[in-house]
Amino acid sequence: VSRPAVVRVDLGARGYDVVVGRGVVGDRLGGLLSGRRRCAVVTQERAGTPHAALVEDALVAAGIEHVVVEMGDGEEHKTLGTVEALAERLAGWGLKRSDAVVALGGGIVGDTAGFLAATYMRGVPIVQVPTTLLAMVDSAIGGKTGVNLGAGKNLVGAFHQPIGVLADPTVLATLPDREYRCGLGEVAKYALLGDLALQAVVADRTPALLARDPGVLAEVVAACAAAKAAVVAADEEERTGARAVLNYGHTLAHALETAGGYRLAHGEAVAVGLVFAGRLAAELARIPSTVADRHRALVEALGLPVAAPAGLDADEVVALMRRDKKSEGGLTFVLAGPSGVERVDDPPAGALLAALGAVGVGGGEVV
Amino acid sequence: VSRPAVVRVDLGARGYDVVVGRGVVGDRLGGLLSGRRRCAVVTQERAGTPHAALVEDALVAAGIEHVVVEMGDGEEHKTLGTVEALAERLAGWGLKRSDAVVALGGGIVGDTAGFLAATYMRGVPIVQVPTTLLAMVDSAIGGKTGVNLGAGKNLVGAFHQPIGVLADPTVLATLPDREYRCGLGEVAKYALLGDLALQAVVADRTPALLARDPGVLAEVVAACAAAKAAVVAADEEERTGARAVLNYGHTLAHALETAGGYRLAHGEAVAVGLVFAGRLAAELARIPSTVADRHRALVEALGLPVAAPAGLDADEVVALMRRDKKSEGGLTFVLAGPSGVERVDDPPAGALLAALGAVGVGGGEVV
Repeated sequence: VSRPAVVRVDLGARGYDVVVGRGVVGDRLGGLLSGRRRCAVVTQERAGTPHAALVEDALVAAGIEHVVVEMGDGEEHKTLGTVEALAERLAGWGLKRSDAVVALGGGIVGDTAGFLAATYMRGVPIVQVPTTLLAMVDSAIGGKTGVNLGAGKNLVGAFHQPIGVLADPTVLATLPDREYRCGLGEVAKYALLGDLALQAVVADRTPALLARDPGVLAEVVAACAAAKAAVVAADEEERTGARAVLNYGHTLAHALETAGGYRLAHGEAVAVGLVFAGRLAAELARIPSTVADRHRALVEALGLPVAAPAGLDADEVVALMRRDKKSEGGLTFVLAGPSGVERVDDPPAGALLAALGAVGVGGGEVV
Repeated sequence: VSRPAVVRVDLGARGYDVVVGRGVVGDRLGGLLSGRRRCAVVTQERAGTPHAALVEDALVAAGIEHVVVEMGDGEEHKTLGTVEALAERLAGWGLKRSDAVVALGGGIVGDTAGFLAATYMRGVPIVQVPTTLLAMVDSAIGGKTGVNLGAGKNLVGAFHQPIGVLADPTVLATLPDREYRCGLGEVAKYALLGDLALQAVVADRTPALLARDPGVLAEVVAACAAAKAAVVAADEEERTGARAVLNYGHTLAHALETAGGYRLAHGEAVAVGLVFAGRLAAELARIPSTVADRHRALVEALGLPVAAPAGLDADEVVALMRRDKKSEGGLTFVLAGPSGVERVDDPPAGALLAALGAVGVGGGEVV
């Protein structure tokens, strides 16, 4: 049994560890909650079933009284209505500000329970126990919490750092294929953001990664967590722009998700967005064409789509990108370049249409 | 025309001014929002009518595009459902994270709009423009925001400091009598917390205060704001216990509100709670009986109740006080004493029943 990897999210008094490895929940959860009397475990029905016992056993062993509170699965349950129902359960059970919450599940549980913890009695501590690859490498780390409105995703939320993140890659063995591949989309993002060691692991050990080998997964999850932790430490609340690099590939991804009526899952849309971002940077002569080719090759090797669903119109996609909540009306991309990844506004129409064409989004005249 | 009083809430990068005086909205709102393009004004129907023009004129003069968004009046509207409806309005209108919110109204609007601003896009700036005495001296200052659950008041919320508070005492001229007197309950709290100058103003100029003389009101509001600002600066998020002094009189007040089925308004219940707290401290020999008498005299002079509604049972009231969300199961009071106001846990039953009897809560055997 190898030792777990410990990645520090360096935020001073709000700092915490992301611990990655087999058995970390049983080994670490009791210690994280030491001194607390009670704890509410928020999970979703499906995610709860196989893994709730891990969390419950750890709490029982630590002598912490607990209750398991379930929420529905799916984006349509990530709402203020769910937060209200969960908060009523916590209050009815008598959870105090000195107690804690554990989020056990994927990104939807993590975001919703995170917002619940941020706001219940104006803030209670939370431990994130992610059970999907996407949550382990991205959403469980960094304190971004929130729920959806009818008007858009994640429009209501809070920054609320967890007191710890416990990621056991062995739980990914039972994750449905498509969800696992979606997580690989974010893994590809971190690799292409410039982590050459991670690029090498992904490229050299692709079959083991696709087979969910726990050793390779532990290495990959820890590397992604370290990348995310560094960005979060530099820009905790998205004020300086440093955190924007985490949106690499996401401007097109959000538009493709909307335009495709969510036929593309988020991680798949990010994969296409990464291929597009590489190509656009090459069109703008910010990077050699060979680097753009490497974007495409890496995405393809992970079994992820390199092109948008057929039939999308470039003008429509561009209009959607302009409406992105971070765009302020212009067209904003995060692109690789000679001095690293940075924000690029309003690229020339020719380059934009060429890069869109390279991922199968055709047509388009006026941009 | 006298110059406005400026009270600094000293919270470093999150610090801000409470500006008190006639015409401060017109004079200061534009400057507070300078550089922002758009602003949503959240108000309640009743509060909005007489004063919305003040805010709208100031925004128009400053060249800031705005929309007025109304919410229902009353505790039953202080919910996550209202927050969701308001957030959808803001998103539909296109409010960005770089824009701002103005809360125009009493405590219900301030708390609800404050929580909206704390969570919309994970936080937008807010200016509080209180239109009730209670909001001017208490709820608009200090960044406590929140909404109610079925399980209790203010159980979901956030700490979100405003970028400024603009209090014009002349708007209090049209406040309904009972609401005005409720604000006086909190004024009495600050005076009895040890502000001797404020005690003198309240005692010496009672008729002018009851007549809502703008000059006296400006002086009183500024003194209360200064008292609150000092406590908030010492304990922004209720972590050290310093902020607990603001709950002077509130342990009994909350129980009376619940036991009386909300026949007592909050400020009235606080008034009775202050008389009780003075008497309990005297019973415990923490203060001379004359100081307890002064509590009662000051409350009475302001036209506020000095006794609970008839027919309440001491055992029931004690049981309710034990369930207070800050009690952790015991009985916790904030009481005056030789070294100032401090927290006192589980006083002897005899003293407790005597103090309850002094405010008309009879009976009681086992405590």
